[in-house]
Amino acid sequence: MGYIKVPMDIEKRSFEIIGEEMGNHDFSDRELNVVKRVIHTTADFEYKDLIRIDEQSIDKALSLLKKGCKIYTDTQMIKSGINKKALEKLGCEIVNYVSTEEAFRIAKEKNITRSMAAIEIAMNEGIEFFVFGNAPTALYRLIELYREGKAKPKFVIGAPIGFVGASESKEELLKTDLDNITIRGRKGGSTVSVAIVNALMYMVVDR
Amino acid sequence: MGYIKVPMDIEKRSFEIIGEEMGNHDFSDRELNVVKRVIHTTADFEYKDLIRIDEQSIDKALSLLKKGCKIYTDTQMIKSGINKKALEKLGCEIVNYVSTEEAFRIAKEKNITRSMAAIEIAMNEGIEFFVFGNAPTALYRLIELYREGKAKPKFVIGAPIGFVGASESKEELLKTDLDNITIRGRKGGSTVSVAIVNALMYMVVDR
Repeated sequence: MGYIKVPMDIEKRSFEIIGEEMGNHDFSDRELNVVKRVIHTTADFEYKDLIRIDEQSIDKALSLLKKGCKIYTDTQMIKSGINKKALEKLGCEIVNYVSTEEAFRIAKEKNITRSMAAIEIAMNEGIEFFVFGNAPTALYRLIELYREGKAKPKFVIGAPIGFVGASESKEELLKTDLDNITIRGRKGGSTVSVAIVNALMYMVVDR
Repeated sequence: MGYIKVPMDIEKRSFEIIGEEMGNHDFSDRELNVVKRVIHTTADFEYKDLIRIDEQSIDKALSLLKKGCKIYTDTQMIKSGINKKALEKLGCEIVNYVSTEEAFRIAKEKNITRSMAAIEIAMNEGIEFFVFGNAPTALYRLIELYREGKAKPKFVIGAPIGFVGASESKEELLKTDLDNITIRGRKGGSTVSVAIVNALMYMVVDR
């Protein structure tokens, strides 16, 4: 069977195909980079219309990445999908506290989800870069804590997926003044979140 | 902000919504279970038409799971997304060899992708349950080795995603006599693969 066997060739050709098929758009070069990687990871061109992205938010994300920030994510899948070499070059670290004993304890005490409890731990650590690909409750909790002046996020990827609360949680994020990249509607998820983070990292470091 | 905070309630309500919106279908109860979980994880109803699933393949998958099989997967994201408690109850183990030294060595020697090299390692271990959510080259390699009588897969999840080779690799799988659950076309991916494996496990063990 004849098939392309070199991973970088496959990726390059894929991005060409996406460029050819996606049609007209108003994205800047950097925005387009993110959008194409999201489509690459989902094979779903609807993301072109669902994504909400701007240059100022990219600047903010890159400034955090360049200073070697801690990145909070709501799922282990996102944690495992993000390019480790690029993270290391940047001196960044990706963390998730959903399965920690402290998250269990807080969730039980307050009768909230562990995803929400984990946000409170991240807040106490002063984390500024948040990635949500799963839990609307966690994103809601971060917005609440931000509005109460308790959490100080600087950049948020809002990509919770699903049928209950996901879309609403992202519209709530868009009402804030937080720099963000958001997938509107029901779609999003772990692979989409990973694609966005990786695309941002590849703007400042080689893979 | 008022929102549902109990994870199992969110999932239950999500499955109800999916049932209401997905319309007519010919799926059996068990097939429907898998299909709904895939839609739940992607918020994409197109999967209803892209999935190729049958009762015999489900039987084969469950018989392997019940005997505590080793499951080979082509990405770390799939490995990290699969429900660990359910795996443990079944005595199953999920493995991925893409980042092993042996895979590096074989890939270099034969000038193939590490994903392909990892399949040769899995073959040598006699693994029967394969999950592909990323690399068409790995799926192609397994099919080649099967046709040559070298690999003995018993059940394959064919869900590579992408624009170059993914769809073709899955059509190649459908030409074999292997029991499989496959996502036709460009779509698929890690979260879809995880949803299929988890749906199968939940048919035989509680979470």
